[in-house]
Amino acid sequence: MKKILNAILPKGFKANGVACGLKKSGKLDLALIYSRFPALACAKFTTSSILAAPLIVCKEHLKAFKRFQAVLVNSGNANCFTGKAGIQDARETAGYVAQALGIEQGSVLVNSTGIIGKRLDLGKIKQGIPELVSGLSSFGIHKAKTAIMTTDTFAKEVSLRIKIGDKLVRICGIAKGAGMIAPNMATMLCFIMTDAVIFRRALDKALGAAVDKSFNRISVDGCMSTNDTVLVLANAAAGNEIISAGADLEKFAKALELICMVLAKMVVSDAEGATKFIQIDVYQAKDVPEAKKVALDIANSVLFKTAVFGENPNFGRVAAAVGASGLGIKEEQLKIRLGTLKGKKVRLAVSLSRGKAKCTVYTCDLTPEYVKINAAYN
Amino acid sequence: MKKILNAILPKGFKANGVACGLKKSGKLDLALIYSRFPALACAKFTTSSILAAPLIVCKEHLKAFKRFQAVLVNSGNANCFTGKAGIQDARETAGYVAQALGIEQGSVLVNSTGIIGKRLDLGKIKQGIPELVSGLSSFGIHKAKTAIMTTDTFAKEVSLRIKIGDKLVRICGIAKGAGMIAPNMATMLCFIMTDAVIFRRALDKALGAAVDKSFNRISVDGCMSTNDTVLVLANAAAGNEIISAGADLEKFAKALELICMVLAKMVVSDAEGATKFIQIDVYQAKDVPEAKKVALDIANSVLFKTAVFGENPNFGRVAAAVGASGLGIKEEQLKIRLGTLKGKKVRLAVSLSRGKAKCTVYTCDLTPEYVKINAAYN
Repeated sequence: MKKILNAILPKGFKANGVACGLKKSGKLDLALIYSRFPALACAKFTTSSILAAPLIVCKEHLKAFKRFQAVLVNSGNANCFTGKAGIQDARETAGYVAQALGIEQGSVLVNSTGIIGKRLDLGKIKQGIPELVSGLSSFGIHKAKTAIMTTDTFAKEVSLRIKIGDKLVRICGIAKGAGMIAPNMATMLCFIMTDAVIFRRALDKALGAAVDKSFNRISVDGCMSTNDTVLVLANAAAGNEIISAGADLEKFAKALELICMVLAKMVVSDAEGATKFIQIDVYQAKDVPEAKKVALDIANSVLFKTAVFGENPNFGRVAAAVGASGLGIKEEQLKIRLGTLKGKKVRLAVSLSRGKAKCTVYTCDLTPEYVKINAAYN
Repeated sequence: MKKILNAILPKGFKANGVACGLKKSGKLDLALIYSRFPALACAKFTTSSILAAPLIVCKEHLKAFKRFQAVLVNSGNANCFTGKAGIQDARETAGYVAQALGIEQGSVLVNSTGIIGKRLDLGKIKQGIPELVSGLSSFGIHKAKTAIMTTDTFAKEVSLRIKIGDKLVRICGIAKGAGMIAPNMATMLCFIMTDAVIFRRALDKALGAAVDKSFNRISVDGCMSTNDTVLVLANAAAGNEIISAGADLEKFAKALELICMVLAKMVVSDAEGATKFIQIDVYQAKDVPEAKKVALDIANSVLFKTAVFGENPNFGRVAAAVGASGLGIKEEQLKIRLGTLKGKKVRLAVSLSRGKAKCTVYTCDLTPEYVKINAAYN
């Protein structure tokens, strides 16, 4: 498995990003991913009961259609809590793309990220489409990954290739993160493209496992978003023997998990205002859900996070978070090892003396800068 | 029901506070409450599975004994996560008080607040006891309420009197708060003294109801402490006809609830680093637990809290918090009214269109100052 720097997209994919004016800053804010070949699509969405309009449209399309060719994503506006009009707006934007590319509207997926509760400016998006489509390129992923950023300080992408039989299969993922990151399904936007030939059920299974071990084990601020999406498109251009089960699926699933894990860690590294990347390992839990709950309860304790920011080895706050978890863990069961807090990377190990399960979760510190960023965000 | 300013303690009670050296600052850090008459005691403790040592000792005493005469409280150290040695230390301090006052050790209750995970300095406490006891006074509540402060910026006390039959009954409560405040039982230290004559069961019932409507409906940072305690002592010195049920109990319960509510609001007003006091009213919920969960999920959303700090009317973050609550509340059910954010007091009203229940919760904004206080606390 090789990492490809300066990635070319998997076969048959093109991408682009433009500035259509949704961001006041004039930065890139509209991204398009396009596959020349109709592609399978699998997705994991936020478990919030309040879904952003584009997610509702995505779900409709994923249910009604079998193949997809385009993903349109805007930043600067989440198109969420915008009612029926917002859903109509999301459909409208899918229509623009379909028309410009000469494909069916149902084969276009859409997503949005940014402020919640404001209507999309359709005029700006419509105006941006011609440039967006005409600039599509197999080198265009850099612009696309930049156009989906909100408070991110760097664009997030990872690519790799694996061999299935004698064919090279490529996988490329991009993500945006930074805030409103909590571990309950996707928790940000992530778009993954692969040219693999694979059964839908196998792809869905691999995606579920990858998301569970990556995006569902990170937390920035414990706030789950209304727009969280991890979407994978597989366009079968690699021409490999179809992946269904066994060693090939294992290999593919491992690669997909690596893509998700690298992107998830990038999201934590780039968390709003953060100065520390924290790895929390919980050992000797009864089972993995218990280990995960303890790790996430610590990760979401603002008192633990501020202590790490202050390089203040206040392990009592770890004990308080574990005690408050509702799992009945007793003082005499709990062992805490907190590494040095001086560097950029911090490790915390917690042992529960209750069993053999373990789980690792990634998080960051809470800083005055996080507060300032989110006090001003609009 | 009259508020008494510059309160005199209820009949038979005395209090005092001294600086014994647990706080590096040299501020008051050891408080004593004493009742000349053996008093009934009822308490509500944190639901954390990791209990501070003094709470373990308190529970033992409350179970084994029927009447109590003293409460010793230190700040500057929580005596939590200190193992069996910590429990022995807590017992030891009860012993000092018992000896100095010439009462049984079992009639002394103890509590601690401050840093978790460090042993108490027994020498300092022992040295402080003679001055603490000799200075006991019916005007000493000011020193006692000051000595239990940690990061509090003002001491918290409220007193009132009611008439039961032809007798005046007094109730006085003191509290400390500031951080590690979450709504799951008491959530800070609160000591209430009354000279009422009341049945134990009636007192316990009134206390449970009062705590549920006050301390369990506030949140500063969503972090539940290991030391949370609300303790009430009733020494029967008022000589009223015993309160058991009916109108008298209702009157007493209402007064106790008011004491708790005023103190709970003071805790939120004085929350670490806060600049805003936020009232969240949730209406039209299926039932009170649903209304309370929604209100608290909003109250604990760091994104909502930072938006209020920034006077940024980002109601989308309210929608995100409600969507993430796991209650299945849909966009079309949700109405949000966010008042002006300019002043010190902010009101948010949320309607769920699901029923007739309502609940009010109090919280505060999240500020860079909160982060700085908790990054440095030790």
